[in-house]
Amino acid sequence: MDRGGSLRAAMAKSTLRPITDVAKDLGLHDDDVIPYGRDKAKIDLAALSRPKRGKGKVVLVSAITPTPAGEGKTTTSIGLTMGLVRMGRSAVCALREPSLGPVFGVKGGGTGGGKAQVVPANEINLHFTGDLHAITSANNLLAALVDNELHFGGKLGIDPRRVTWRRAMDMNDRALRDVVIGLGGRNGGVPRESGFDITAASEIMAVLCLSESMEDLQRRLGRIVIGRTFDQRPVTVDDLEAAPALTALLKDALLPNLAQTMEGSPALVHGGPFANIAHGCSSVLATKMAMHQADIVVTEGGFGFDLGAEKFLDIKCRSAGIWPSAVVVVATLRALKFHGGVDPKDAGKPDPDALARGIANLERHLETARFFGLKSVVAINAFDNDSESEIAMVAERAAALGAPVALSRGYTQGGAGSMDLAEKVAAVVERDEPLTPKFAYELDLPYAKKIDLIAKNVYGADGADLDASAKATLEKLEQDGYGGLPVCIAKTQLSVSDDPKKQGRPTGFRVTVREVRLSAGAGFVVALLGDVMTMPGLPKVPAARNVRIEPDGTVRGLMQND
Amino acid sequence: MDRGGSLRAAMAKSTLRPITDVAKDLGLHDDDVIPYGRDKAKIDLAALSRPKRGKGKVVLVSAITPTPAGEGKTTTSIGLTMGLVRMGRSAVCALREPSLGPVFGVKGGGTGGGKAQVVPANEINLHFTGDLHAITSANNLLAALVDNELHFGGKLGIDPRRVTWRRAMDMNDRALRDVVIGLGGRNGGVPRESGFDITAASEIMAVLCLSESMEDLQRRLGRIVIGRTFDQRPVTVDDLEAAPALTALLKDALLPNLAQTMEGSPALVHGGPFANIAHGCSSVLATKMAMHQADIVVTEGGFGFDLGAEKFLDIKCRSAGIWPSAVVVVATLRALKFHGGVDPKDAGKPDPDALARGIANLERHLETARFFGLKSVVAINAFDNDSESEIAMVAERAAALGAPVALSRGYTQGGAGSMDLAEKVAAVVERDEPLTPKFAYELDLPYAKKIDLIAKNVYGADGADLDASAKATLEKLEQDGYGGLPVCIAKTQLSVSDDPKKQGRPTGFRVTVREVRLSAGAGFVVALLGDVMTMPGLPKVPAARNVRIEPDGTVRGLMQND
Repeated sequence: MDRGGSLRAAMAKSTLRPITDVAKDLGLHDDDVIPYGRDKAKIDLAALSRPKRGKGKVVLVSAITPTPAGEGKTTTSIGLTMGLVRMGRSAVCALREPSLGPVFGVKGGGTGGGKAQVVPANEINLHFTGDLHAITSANNLLAALVDNELHFGGKLGIDPRRVTWRRAMDMNDRALRDVVIGLGGRNGGVPRESGFDITAASEIMAVLCLSESMEDLQRRLGRIVIGRTFDQRPVTVDDLEAAPALTALLKDALLPNLAQTMEGSPALVHGGPFANIAHGCSSVLATKMAMHQADIVVTEGGFGFDLGAEKFLDIKCRSAGIWPSAVVVVATLRALKFHGGVDPKDAGKPDPDALARGIANLERHLETARFFGLKSVVAINAFDNDSESEIAMVAERAAALGAPVALSRGYTQGGAGSMDLAEKVAAVVERDEPLTPKFAYELDLPYAKKIDLIAKNVYGADGADLDASAKATLEKLEQDGYGGLPVCIAKTQLSVSDDPKKQGRPTGFRVTVREVRLSAGAGFVVALLGDVMTMPGLPKVPAARNVRIEPDGTVRGLMQND
Repeated sequence: MDRGGSLRAAMAKSTLRPITDVAKDLGLHDDDVIPYGRDKAKIDLAALSRPKRGKGKVVLVSAITPTPAGEGKTTTSIGLTMGLVRMGRSAVCALREPSLGPVFGVKGGGTGGGKAQVVPANEINLHFTGDLHAITSANNLLAALVDNELHFGGKLGIDPRRVTWRRAMDMNDRALRDVVIGLGGRNGGVPRESGFDITAASEIMAVLCLSESMEDLQRRLGRIVIGRTFDQRPVTVDDLEAAPALTALLKDALLPNLAQTMEGSPALVHGGPFANIAHGCSSVLATKMAMHQADIVVTEGGFGFDLGAEKFLDIKCRSAGIWPSAVVVVATLRALKFHGGVDPKDAGKPDPDALARGIANLERHLETARFFGLKSVVAINAFDNDSESEIAMVAERAAALGAPVALSRGYTQGGAGSMDLAEKVAAVVERDEPLTPKFAYELDLPYAKKIDLIAKNVYGADGADLDASAKATLEKLEQDGYGGLPVCIAKTQLSVSDDPKKQGRPTGFRVTVREVRLSAGAGFVVALLGDVMTMPGLPKVPAARNVRIEPDGTVRGLMQND
């Protein structure tokens, strides 16, 4: 990948390269690039019909169980990509696109940090190319059509109390979690209880991220089940004759988005399902486009390995027929000490005993990666005051599980600070060993068994229990012909168990499935372990209050430390 | 305006001209053009700081009172623009952008029809450049911040029962008109009654359309009143410290959008407030950009003259310091006969008596235009079977009010069919007479008097009455320092009165203000005459069901007859 003078100029002046130049690095033609604003573009799918240009090795970036300190998975992914490019590799990252909810809520923007960001960061964090809005529109058109059917008493016989389709909004808005709609008399439709999910949790988001073509998208949309009739038959989008209208709303959103790293190399940023309440990976089409055009594709699964990575492997890879060549597990010494029982405010201080206990969390995830037959590299997202002896402790324990440890300084030094990681990852990827997919469960098992296997193989639990209603729902789904799908676990991201208070490496526990939802369009069954919010709330002082507009019109404060 | 070979090629092959070429017709620089997709763009405001290039004469296209047959105002506006371009004039239209609600509801797309459309029509009718979505997001971020303030019991002391800010959705969804939010226990916030408006009715839409710069936008957003405290003090967006975040969400939406007519000439399509429940005109910035760059600007006010045109003059022109050089009043013989009492299904047949009665509706609007000191041209949107003697009847009555009549065949013949209209409009515009703005009311009058003057001067009513609660609200607003604003009347579009059943030219009636709402950010007071829905519903068979996707991915059925 020769980016020549234009890249060096971009790095020197910190300006952005023309997006068509960035596209050329991926071997894309000018005609493939559909510009959105000055520095963003969508990529026409035509490139996929041309001969494959890249080796398409996939690196999955995952992490230990998240802590309040933050691990920097996206920052590490971007730094790693930039490091690989500096090594002369044809490398591209395929990341999730941010939701406005977190941007204006607790977390701020989702485009990496420091010197390892995808840019234009503000544009990506705000409306980007409109994908989230298109998904919201499709979700809510479907909801309006369902309530319209109820209002006019259509022939489908939908039971208003059995409508499971909820509305969506790309916003953290707790007041919409549980609502009563259809009030105000006959003109307001049929009163019923319902609610809103954040768009990243909508089944439409999952459908978009798993679709491999426009036809596949329309087919999946048509399969979505919106509720049941009075005699309990499932009602689909195809029953409502709505799939073409939803497809029309989503036709541009389906195309992968192109942006660039701060060092001017290409970055695909497309699809953004949350990993605790959805499947947590960027789109299949972006991954496949990246694999088609580049040698190494760096992608991530949200939250810890138990959530994003498990679903990446068992859902996305199985559906799309892909498999990673390497896994990166991101950790920080602070986070490991937090898992060892230290208070977050003290986690910056040396504490070998706490670290020794906390490394068990990392080991849990490395063992899971081994279970899946995957070779890992541990990326320590480094801080200036990290102690060498503590890093050596991590390296020793990781080595025992076959995983080299690399220091990652992408935040402070960009690609130059990610060379250690890039070299170790390249060494794993370039062994060119044959890939043998192995899953946590096979699809033909009963759902109860599949969930039990995830609990044992991925969480290290003794097994999974089902609440009576969850059990009944799963049996009904199997009777209705909806067996054979993978399971998308929705659970807390703060523990490998279903109890957010259990840090480190809990043992001797079981998990409990409290509720089950069918996502027939996405092609999975969602099993909720505990109370998992599908609509976040804003904190007492929302990030929205930090935003300011400079006199020249520049937006500040969308990212932390901005 | 020399568009040379590229325009002829576009006309011959019915392909689109490159959007940067279209921008050049307006004297815009390549740097001014921010592409959105292949054939849409936003225009940087930088052009406004360069010397004025055009004479900037404004033609306001309005219409008689709408009927079920449809009058074709947008089609006429586009045809007129194309006709003026064919005459060698530097002409551009500045139109409203469509809302997804009507697109998937009754009406279908809002981009003109037949051979007089703005293109790419499907793209404009779907997400276009994302303006509606940005407005929805800003509206709903504000709502989430308000409910968050209630949830955390902040210092502002907002009374949950006095929150007037509603949520918005760009969808026809009657089930959201009246809802109860904040249910589900403490985690769901504070339970209260609320509702959703369609985005086109949001105050944010009005704010965007009236803003003249980013600073003006932020200032107006900050002034928005979201409700009152327990001791009845108004609470603003600035009190919530939310104006910068809302501005950040709207910074791109503020920029005018560039598309093209089917004959390849430039078309600005920006901002889309409905005219029955909002002020009904495209954005001030698009109008000013068009005036800055072209000699003749064709723009429209929604629905009949009593709604869109009145608000164009009394609100938009007064706020922006502009004034039209000519008015076009669109009518069809069918619609006039409908106003004369004929059943819509019989309105295509000759019926001179009904026509004679129905022309009174046209006369009402022509007299109103004269009241405003404006010179009108009547455009008869012609059908093949229109009778010459009936057209002569209209011409005679219009001539008595000083208005020439032109036949407009834009739908069937494009610009070539609009030459008669273009010539008559050019003749009026190019008299170069000094423009003397005259309004229906002065701003320093009490609200009751302003509304009374609109009723008398524009509707031909005997006066306006105020319900007791409306009267009290207006007096409270004046006490709180919110006097001195213009009034945005929300009323039925189906009559010049407030009674949708009164077609033609009703006389001897009064109108009644039932409710009053403050739009402090937009800078007007909304007076609702009768029940005006701020959230439409879908019809029994929604237009969404007509959409289909061709095997090559083309979307069909978004427009009528597609």
